[in-house]
Amino acid sequence: SAQSPPVSDGMILSNEVQFELQRMQQQIDELKSASVISSAASTATFSSAPVLCCPSEKPTYPTKPKYPTARLTGFFQADAVGFSQDRANMETLGGGIAADGDIQDGADFRRARLAATGQAWDNVSYMLEMDFAFPGRPSFMDVWLDIDDVLGSSNLRVGQFRQPFGMDGLTSVREMTFLERALPFAFLPFRQIGAMLYGNRKDELATWAIAGFRYPTDTFGGNVGDNGGYGMATRLTGLLVNRGDGKGLVHLGGGYSFIDPANDQFQYRNQPEVAVGETGGGVPTRAIANVPAFVDTGAFAADNANLFNAELALAYGSFYAQSEASYAVVTQPAGPTLTLPGAYAHAGYFLTGETRKYNGKNGVFGRVTPDRSVGNEGGIGAWEIAGRWSYLDLNDENIQGGRLNDLTAGLNWYLNPYTKFQFNYIHAMLDRPTYGESDADIFAMRAQLDF
Amino acid sequence: SAQSPPVSDGMILSNEVQFELQRMQQQIDELKSASVISSAASTATFSSAPVLCCPSEKPTYPTKPKYPTARLTGFFQADAVGFSQDRANMETLGGGIAADGDIQDGADFRRARLAATGQAWDNVSYMLEMDFAFPGRPSFMDVWLDIDDVLGSSNLRVGQFRQPFGMDGLTSVREMTFLERALPFAFLPFRQIGAMLYGNRKDELATWAIAGFRYPTDTFGGNVGDNGGYGMATRLTGLLVNRGDGKGLVHLGGGYSFIDPANDQFQYRNQPEVAVGETGGGVPTRAIANVPAFVDTGAFAADNANLFNAELALAYGSFYAQSEASYAVVTQPAGPTLTLPGAYAHAGYFLTGETRKYNGKNGVFGRVTPDRSVGNEGGIGAWEIAGRWSYLDLNDENIQGGRLNDLTAGLNWYLNPYTKFQFNYIHAMLDRPTYGESDADIFAMRAQLDF
Amino acid sequence: SAQSPPVSDGMILSNEVQFELQRMQQQIDELKSASVISSAASTATFSSAPVLCCPSEKPTYPTKPKYPTARLTGFFQADAVGFSQDRANMETLGGGIAADGDIQDGADFRRARLAATGQAWDNVSYMLEMDFAFPGRPSFMDVWLDIDDVLGSSNLRVGQFRQPFGMDGLTSVREMTFLERALPFAFLPFRQIGAMLYGNRKDELATWAIAGFRYPTDTFGGNVGDNGGYGMATRLTGLLVNRGDGKGLVHLGGGYSFIDPANDQFQYRNQPEVAVGETGGGVPTRAIANVPAFVDTGAFAADNANLFNAELALAYGSFYAQSEASYAVVTQPAGPTLTLPGAYAHAGYFLTGETRKYNGKNGVFGRVTPDRSVGNEGGIGAWEIAGRWSYLDLNDENIQGGRLNDLTAGLNWYLNPYTKFQFNYIHAMLDRPTYGESDADIFAMRAQLDF
Repeated sequence: SAQSPPVSDGMILSNEVQFELQRMQQQIDELKSASVISSAASTATFSSAPVLCCPSEKPTYPTKPKYPTARLTGFFQADAVGFSQDRANMETLGGGIAADGDIQDGADFRRARLAATGQAWDNVSYMLEMDFAFPGRPSFMDVWLDIDDVLGSSNLRVGQFRQPFGMDGLTSVREMTFLERALPFAFLPFRQIGAMLYGNRKDELATWAIAGFRYPTDTFGGNVGDNGGYGMATRLTGLLVNRGDGKGLVHLGGGYSFIDPANDQFQYRNQPEVAVGETGGGVPTRAIANVPAFVDTGAFAADNANLFNAELALAYGSFYAQSEASYAVVTQPAGPTLTLPGAYAHAGYFLTGETRKYNGKNGVFGRVTPDRSVGNEGGIGAWEIAGRWSYLDLNDENIQGGRLNDLTAGLNWYLNPYTKFQFNYIHAMLDRPTYGESDADIFAMRAQLDF
Repeated sequence: SAQSPPVSDGMILSNEVQFELQRMQQQIDELKSASVISSAASTATFSSAPVLCCPSEKPTYPTKPKYPTARLTGFFQADAVGFSQDRANMETLGGGIAADGDIQDGADFRRARLAATGQAWDNVSYMLEMDFAFPGRPSFMDVWLDIDDVLGSSNLRVGQFRQPFGMDGLTSVREMTFLERALPFAFLPFRQIGAMLYGNRKDELATWAIAGFRYPTDTFGGNVGDNGGYGMATRLTGLLVNRGDGKGLVHLGGGYSFIDPANDQFQYRNQPEVAVGETGGGVPTRAIANVPAFVDTGAFAADNANLFNAELALAYGSFYAQSEASYAVVTQPAGPTLTLPGAYAHAGYFLTGETRKYNGKNGVFGRVTPDRSVGNEGGIGAWEIAGRWSYLDLNDENIQGGRLNDLTAGLNWYLNPYTKFQFNYIHAMLDRPTYGESDADIFAMRAQLDF
Repeated sequence: SAQSPPVSDGMILSNEVQFELQRMQQQIDELKSASVISSAASTATFSSAPVLCCPSEKPTYPTKPKYPTARLTGFFQADAVGFSQDRANMETLGGGIAADGDIQDGADFRRARLAATGQAWDNVSYMLEMDFAFPGRPSFMDVWLDIDDVLGSSNLRVGQFRQPFGMDGLTSVREMTFLERALPFAFLPFRQIGAMLYGNRKDELATWAIAGFRYPTDTFGGNVGDNGGYGMATRLTGLLVNRGDGKGLVHLGGGYSFIDPANDQFQYRNQPEVAVGETGGGVPTRAIANVPAFVDTGAFAADNANLFNAELALAYGSFYAQSEASYAVVTQPAGPTLTLPGAYAHAGYFLTGETRKYNGKNGVFGRVTPDRSVGNEGGIGAWEIAGRWSYLDLNDENIQGGRLNDLTAGLNWYLNPYTKFQFNYIHAMLDRPTYGESDADIFAMRAQLDF
């Protein structure tokens, strides 16, 4: 009863279907033995009864192609943002003219992504992810292939991916406590095209990663340049304390990166931890279409940069906290070496009793799963309050990009593991050389769904 | 024999697979009882026979994660269009020079979309749809999340979606009788970023919807602006007569929308119910790359607009008809209030006996399913003839955008529920202030496939 | 006991799932007969025993909607490329200034595609494929619907697709021996919007195809133009020898195409069989962002072109070879008729014993499947060495686009059927009228994953 295998040079087989199929096979197998036995019981007694039940040879089924697998995944974040700036802030951002620095309220999709992910073979996985909301539209996000166990238990990743540097940068953007990453994100190499060796201890008490890449990679994953254009990054993390879920966890981590940019320049800048914008003809006359960078070095000539990062994170019961300090040490061809610091600390607490799970494979905090999701059977979801202080100083020597402190209060409502509403109130305290100190208050909310 | 559930933070489980799995489980269950009985029959008689068939405890299978689900869906429309204009029409569109208003024949993809849709939880659904043929490439289409039963039986939708205004606008573009929506579509807010409460009676005799949104939303779902930039829309529909499929149906509906645009201007315009175009260097010298708007107010300063709409639709046997009348009442800051009308009426008849099904959840006509699809078992599909009159008057007071009447004859061949060929002949009668009356004849065909 | 079919206006049912479901149904059916028999055996003897096992009526299961099906598929190619040019080559490409013709090393995604493919009905299939790495971003790739058996056993394809002309052009870009197609690819109409009739003998010894299309189609599948803008292409292939896998195969083919371009011009050009580039602000000052065309006619006025192509391919054991010769005969409105030739020949050999399978439906070579894929159970994959000579002469009469000869040595490592690493060394020998002869050496590697 052999059949020829179906032509299947590509298939989609979800975990659930696989599980269902296994579950059924198990029942069928049980039935088979039961059936054989009961019929054996019958036929043993009545030997004249025809033995018809069981083919003497076990039917052979063709081995089936298991690979490649492909799963459709993605998410979107719809934001609404309101701004309240003092006059000094508008003048600072408008180059002295308040009307040119008046950030407009608005609504926008911050991120909207579709991706295919799966296995090409039992030891090869992949991701092909595009973002449709970023400039570049679509922009290349995670586009890589992974080969397992290339060097001991370390895996090799080739393609474009987030370079291993910083806990905040490596936390999934689907799983962040606040709407945006903290201000020192400005220094991170983040997504570049290259190759990485990475792994973790089997008990998930430590992770390591080292990568080489081309820099700067454009929004489509490309980079050219004969004079430099390379970088490397590495990160080590470990758990000092790991008493199990909700019983106490202390994470320590460190990162280092060296970058020699192809275009011999850097530009560090950041928005006040919120973004909203519009493209095309519908923007009101003279209005700013996008939230401007509050601090900005402008592009400046540089030979290379050394980046340093330290991580500390804690979790106990429904409380967790995370902090990082970053330094960029930049060598200028015709100027002094710059040292630019950034730091942040944040904490969160679940009013509804959940804990913030730790992702031991990546050395970051993971997804929040409500104890009682809002659904057809009731439930109020998970409610979380959180606060953050965030700091970035882009003033040193000849570079005067400004200094920004942000204080954020956050309220998150997780309806279920895949749907959440987030509310952020941000108080941004800016100090820019020419225009001095100024403040902005920002109210932002987000609806996020991922799948 | 409990197993730990498989890791599945995302899966694809189609309706068919679910159905197949249920069907098999049913058979297995039947076999189990049969097997137990037959072996019981045996063992009842021969009590010494070993009872091996049935584990005393029913094996328990782990509860499986059901969410999120994701289904890949989409469609494309490949059009070929030919134009025959009189000289006056070419001169009108060319600003007095016929060669500049000579619309070129062509072929193009009108729409090409990929989307993910599914459930994030038992009460939360979503859609993330991109169009690759529209300017913006890709452009945000339906990108929203829905929460069921938020206010009574009403659902809440958050994100970008088609605002509830107009039967033609809310009919799926996969399921339209003609290639394009009728001329009054020019007034509709259509897809904007916002939030909507909507629902329908359980017996599907009535629908309601009310939404607030930012306006105008760009092709990537964004809008900014401090001075206005808001709108609302609402729609009510009901069935006066609903005798069941093919036995008579009368639909009534009404809509109202108020819009205060962020950029304090409106521009109403429309093509003659057909579009084809080319981008980039291959366009012949001096030729128009895209079908121009036949009527066009140009962008003009406006405080706000009040939109009104009335709907009437009928179906009886293989015949159906639909008509709408729309008014835009626009307040100008330094000019008189404008009243701009539009209307259309169309009717269709299936030569092959099908009926046009009504979608009672959305208050629009739905998908055509041929009685005998063209396939390996024969069948000629569904054949439909249809006609439409369509009207848009953009002349009032200081705004002289022109007046257009379109007559369309259509022939649709539905090979199966997901594949159709459409043929439209359009006679466009234009009256523009400076250039007077002119005509164009348009021949258009479309191949459409959706999945 | 009929149930209404589940709502499923779209589903994903992979071959593997289908196969698994069939396999289970088969087992269930076997169990059913066994169960009936064993219980019959019991009850035959004890006629007083209650007959409970089998419902007298076989339960009927509802016919389920099978269509449409949708499968998520795609692939990406991540390239790293290094260049070594002589001074004459830099000056040639830089218009006399070496610094302007110095091609930069780089890394980039050459192609990155997502597609939906499936069946809309038992006789209608489709593909909707977008490339996110090409200019256009995303660009329309294969976007078509196919109807089976429209004219005899020939199928009809409507939409955008690769026009039937040339073996190299019709070989899947996932399955090429080298990183890029050979130089004569410059002449091919390739992807255009149109319609095609195509088919093959049932024994797969011959294929035929004829197509009409609009030309030139832009990156979004559109074309306009009243004065021309049409083309046709046809291809015939056959196997002279077909002794079965690895035992000897000889393929012959021919193609013809006529093109009357909408914009009355052609431009033939090609890069030296490698491409890498960057977009946006990160490109070093004065550096070339993309690999320039080595040979280039520039855009020149033309009435039409006649294209001719001859194919020859062989396979024996682990060895295979393929060669094509192409001619473009171009009519100029105010100049002599041009005859531009191109040709290539390549050969490959598997060190690990595989054979290069022939795709008899399309008349091209197909996917390489390693005998022992690299995986959790060991295996070194398939290793292949290959060489190519490639030639394109764009000099004739008033058109002096240059003449290029490329020699390529290739090494391919197929880890499994869906993952490969490729290494190409290319020696490009250029002869351009003004600047004379020059050379470039190119080292390129690729990581490719498809699903």
